[in-house]
Amino acid sequence: MITKEQIAEAYQEIQDEICAGLERADGKGKFREELWERDGGGGGRTRIIQNGSFLEKGGVNFSAVHGKLPDAIKKAFGVSTDDFFATGVSIVIHPDHPWIPIIHMNIRYFEMTGEAGRELRWFGGGIDLTPHYVIKEDAQFFHSALKDTCDRFKLDFYTKFKKWADDYFFIKHRNETRGIGGIFYDRLNPESTGLDWESIFEFSKAVGRTFVPVYSELISRNKDKTYNDIHKDWQYQRRSRYVEFNLVYDAGTKFGLETNGRIESILMSLPPQANWTYDFKPDTGSEEENTLNLLKKGINWV
Amino acid sequence: MITKEQIAEAYQEIQDEICAGLERADGKGKFREELWERDGGGGGRTRIIQNGSFLEKGGVNFSAVHGKLPDAIKKAFGVSTDDFFATGVSIVIHPDHPWIPIIHMNIRYFEMTGEAGRELRWFGGGIDLTPHYVIKEDAQFFHSALKDTCDRFKLDFYTKFKKWADDYFFIKHRNETRGIGGIFYDRLNPESTGLDWESIFEFSKAVGRTFVPVYSELISRNKDKTYNDIHKDWQYQRRSRYVEFNLVYDAGTKFGLETNGRIESILMSLPPQANWTYDFKPDTGSEEENTLNLLKKGINWV
Repeated sequence: MITKEQIAEAYQEIQDEICAGLERADGKGKFREELWERDGGGGGRTRIIQNGSFLEKGGVNFSAVHGKLPDAIKKAFGVSTDDFFATGVSIVIHPDHPWIPIIHMNIRYFEMTGEAGRELRWFGGGIDLTPHYVIKEDAQFFHSALKDTCDRFKLDFYTKFKKWADDYFFIKHRNETRGIGGIFYDRLNPESTGLDWESIFEFSKAVGRTFVPVYSELISRNKDKTYNDIHKDWQYQRRSRYVEFNLVYDAGTKFGLETNGRIESILMSLPPQANWTYDFKPDTGSEEENTLNLLKKGINWV
Repeated sequence: MITKEQIAEAYQEIQDEICAGLERADGKGKFREELWERDGGGGGRTRIIQNGSFLEKGGVNFSAVHGKLPDAIKKAFGVSTDDFFATGVSIVIHPDHPWIPIIHMNIRYFEMTGEAGRELRWFGGGIDLTPHYVIKEDAQFFHSALKDTCDRFKLDFYTKFKKWADDYFFIKHRNETRGIGGIFYDRLNPESTGLDWESIFEFSKAVGRTFVPVYSELISRNKDKTYNDIHKDWQYQRRSRYVEFNLVYDAGTKFGLETNGRIESILMSLPPQANWTYDFKPDTGSEEENTLNLLKKGINWV
């Protein structure tokens, strides 16, 4: 039987590997770490990189927290018990270079205990990509890599989790997806997957270990491209959509704000700079318009 | 008896006066207007100014919309009828100059009809100020002007509405107010105020007409001050807090997004540029720290 301590330990290892991998890919930026404790119980290791060669601002955060659930969340889960434990690794990277995509990854484990005869536990997570400019070959590469990871565990995972990401990373008020999606999953347990806990845990770690090779490749494909002020301006506008999604819709951000999470760790997902230009419409036939046309649900990239 | 048509007409006049007054104060920027219609009924006149002498981005919007309320909002109001009418003028101005404050004003009227024997109508609104740097004399001037307007109608208005603004414009996850507050009020009707409908309508217009003289004075007091990169950087950070408030807490923004409002008009409140720097802490004794210390509820400015 896997314990929560084992999961937290594996996630810390993955955090270490990812930070080392990103420093290697960037070549200049270094993570700085802050250890923090949560008033209600537990804590984390926030690691931030700023002003690297390509990585303008990013965080690779580990946390393992426990305590009492707020009433609103208990109600949403339909439980009467209120002890929870949650651990995970969360990443958001905002690159400086507009041809390198924004990336987000999260792997997490959650459990509620204390209710007689009933224990709720699950794994959740995902990886998704938000290119400022959608490049078809890169999107295909990204989705294929995710599919490979999923296929090693269950053949319907990729299709299900890809659709889940399309639906989740959707900016309803703009009628556009945040980026080109990826995979998103939640509440994975033996009942919902048909796999045993060990396999689900292995899957969670495999998702975590997909991050570095995939993102390193995307950096290396794009880092030598040239760009100009139009590209930068568009990047700042795409980042403002990222802000809108995270503050209006993102469940992780909401959960963090409602459970008195550490604000700077939760909001490290926000970009170093974002611009809002009133009613901006890209020119017909432009690269920017082409990208907007690809921010739709249901595109089959593989 | 005042009709909703009279209210909408008066609000349009106020929109005209405010746009003329702001163009005068800026000296260079001109508003451009877009007329729009809402699918569910009604429409508006969005007026945007960009790249003025001092006014980097701002909107002075009039709308008068009607239609059916979404279920979630009906539930929140505890009504079974679902026909609504809403009209108002909304302003947010983001100045380029870091010593000129961000300002927000809203005057609005809302009614629900159709439920047998019961009609819900009320006025709401307010003005509040978000200085990038809090200047005590300006804060006193601003609050005194609001108090003067309030006092002409009812002696307890200022005290009540000032506290309401402190409580409303509060960024809970940062434990700081959005700015130095002002006045905020909602659901004003004869029952809640002891005034007749005519007087409440007069109050609403008086609030609208307080805007131009007050903001013009604040521009003129600060526009010739010098500033440097540190001031600009801080301004971008304060703007990011403005974004957080509007997307996470603001009821008007939520109502707009949930009732399929016109996105560009709702989100014109967002700044042209906002920056998030990880865990920024101002130096001890700096102007920035001094401002942070004044972003608290309950300061008596008059």
